[in-house]
Amino acid sequence: MARVTVPGFKFAGIACGIKKSRKKDLAVIFSERPATAAALFTTNRVKAAPVLVGLKRMKRGVLQAVVVNSGNANACTGSQGLGDAEAACREAGLRLRIEPKLVFPSSTGVIGIPLPTEKMRRGIQEAAKKLSLKSFLHAAEAILTTDRFVKVATASCLLKGRRVVIAGMAKGAGMIAPNLATMLVYILTDAAVERRCLDAILRRSAEETFNRITVDGDMSTNDTVLFLANGFAGNSPVRRGSREERVLGQATQRVMKELAVKLVGDGEGTTKVAEIRVDGSRSVAEAKKVAFAVANSKLVKTAFFGADPNFGRIMAAIGYAGVGIQPERIDVSFDGVIVVSKGVGINSTERAAARVLRRPSFTVRIHLHHGKRFASVWTSDLGYEYIRINSAYRT
Amino acid sequence: MARVTVPGFKFAGIACGIKKSRKKDLAVIFSERPATAAALFTTNRVKAAPVLVGLKRMKRGVLQAVVVNSGNANACTGSQGLGDAEAACREAGLRLRIEPKLVFPSSTGVIGIPLPTEKMRRGIQEAAKKLSLKSFLHAAEAILTTDRFVKVATASCLLKGRRVVIAGMAKGAGMIAPNLATMLVYILTDAAVERRCLDAILRRSAEETFNRITVDGDMSTNDTVLFLANGFAGNSPVRRGSREERVLGQATQRVMKELAVKLVGDGEGTTKVAEIRVDGSRSVAEAKKVAFAVANSKLVKTAFFGADPNFGRIMAAIGYAGVGIQPERIDVSFDGVIVVSKGVGINSTERAAARVLRRPSFTVRIHLHHGKRFASVWTSDLGYEYIRINSAYRT
Repeated sequence: MARVTVPGFKFAGIACGIKKSRKKDLAVIFSERPATAAALFTTNRVKAAPVLVGLKRMKRGVLQAVVVNSGNANACTGSQGLGDAEAACREAGLRLRIEPKLVFPSSTGVIGIPLPTEKMRRGIQEAAKKLSLKSFLHAAEAILTTDRFVKVATASCLLKGRRVVIAGMAKGAGMIAPNLATMLVYILTDAAVERRCLDAILRRSAEETFNRITVDGDMSTNDTVLFLANGFAGNSPVRRGSREERVLGQATQRVMKELAVKLVGDGEGTTKVAEIRVDGSRSVAEAKKVAFAVANSKLVKTAFFGADPNFGRIMAAIGYAGVGIQPERIDVSFDGVIVVSKGVGINSTERAAARVLRRPSFTVRIHLHHGKRFASVWTSDLGYEYIRINSAYRT
Repeated sequence: MARVTVPGFKFAGIACGIKKSRKKDLAVIFSERPATAAALFTTNRVKAAPVLVGLKRMKRGVLQAVVVNSGNANACTGSQGLGDAEAACREAGLRLRIEPKLVFPSSTGVIGIPLPTEKMRRGIQEAAKKLSLKSFLHAAEAILTTDRFVKVATASCLLKGRRVVIAGMAKGAGMIAPNLATMLVYILTDAAVERRCLDAILRRSAEETFNRITVDGDMSTNDTVLFLANGFAGNSPVRRGSREERVLGQATQRVMKELAVKLVGDGEGTTKVAEIRVDGSRSVAEAKKVAFAVANSKLVKTAFFGADPNFGRIMAAIGYAGVGIQPERIDVSFDGVIVVSKGVGINSTERAAARVLRRPSFTVRIHLHHGKRFASVWTSDLGYEYIRINSAYRT
């Protein structure tokens, strides 16, 4: 993998002993100058301590460092958890010589166990010493839990003749569902961007990417997408409603889309990624509702795993999506192979359809034929490995 | 298993070759006189042909026979499917010497394949000849698909000094979710009951039983709960709002509750049954919402399978249920073993909690501490066997 750098950002990823496996479990991201920040958080009512602290940090919208630990979610840990998250920020502030308020905390891992604060403290000290412009991938590795691979994506674009870089790293695997389930995502750019504009780009891009994926339909207590813009590129700050906002937004969305699809591909036990595309709906919301009903159906997902072109399960899921569809109008195809035509199952294409489902990625296209809107979501299959990983996570 | 009889009802359960396994796949239930009928159907927008025909039959509310085939759902089969369902009723009417309009059709099995009509026709002829007061269990066996065991329940009660019997048979296994997922249930009584009263008893009892269970969260295109009262007991017809309605309603609900819990216990791949009881909510609807979020969580269900007392996943599911809970008030216990107290995880009880989760059935009690209402739902665990059954259903 090519080296990833973003001017003005330094990184460290180390093992401080939170994970018993001795794998990397602490990441620090540091910007050489305070950066404009925008963030999205889990909509779960049960929010982990670092999310509560992070929400507080975003009131100001300026950050200079991020401290992420993996292996422990610091969730359901009460007031002690809040204190531990603040302590990590204080320690980072001390070592990086910045205000603790400029440090953003994140945690991911097991819920309900207090953070090992002494390990964190020593880890932050070590990471602060190791910060380097070249260690993006080390940090990207240190934020992982049951993930099988590092997930990063980059893009660049020209803002009034000046090239800027956008790079992102993501942690996913389990609890991936719409509205930011267990995912930690950090998007960094050297562009200068006004805060309202950065926020708008983040929200719009996330709606089309991270809010369109599902692995197990569960939503975590810790999800965070953070977007930092440090202005090292020297462009004049991108403003809300400008042409530059659109250009930067498109590049950012490309990064997020790549990370989102990688999150599904690295879902716990995933062997294939399916795009569920719904056409001919009255609204995007309706198309999403139908797509997610199909994408979250355990019966559909196990059929994908077994490469069984079981269109009946897809039709059943469309039927219970809570949308006023007309069954006799619906067409369904797998990468162009028609399996349902006007609501009636086509059995002659069964073998061709099964071949499509053996591909590592494919598109299920559902046409409702009662409107002009459409939407896609991305989902994984559901196989034995998901059960193995999740039935033995802690014990 | 003791013999089940309901005065005036005859049964047959035979193999007519729809299932390749040569197992029983055709059941006929016949009442010696027209019976008052009430029914509930799937709320899925995609309804199988027999459901569409059944809905039509219920306009009159009088039935004398039920023809059920397993192995083929006659769903997504278009106008041909409707014709095939009507043809089955005509054949049964001919052989039983009753109007086809008094015959109610049901199908369960694979979706999207036309019904093998010639096998059905010969099967109905054979079943009509074999009808017997003693063959309840044969019929209960013939309605099964991937079910591992026959599910029946009985009760009796006194209506103004006259003993009446209520007996039910159910088919479940997959696609079990709230609002009648793939389940076929036939409840029979020799009581005389006015139609409106029978309907009220059915709806009320189903709300507390069949609408409180979940196996995989999917909802089928074929679900049907049918309640027939043939009046052979000779009581004066039970009227809406009477004391007898309450007595008969309680006995009926006992039968339905027993069938509902058996449906979960026979869910595809189920190794244990968990009652998710939510207390201290503002309304029953809110308690159900929280209970179903927990009961449908794949992460919670795999933790049950692995006997992992992972309270974090339960807290996460409570948090995304869409109910305004206060995390810091929540208590969670497993058969009395406290795992979360005031929103904070208790780790000292981990081994005792794991022992509870190894039991074949247990109760997860969630106290929200912000109201006085409560509700229970029943769910299964999620293990390898579910994946095995569902990834290789057709191919």
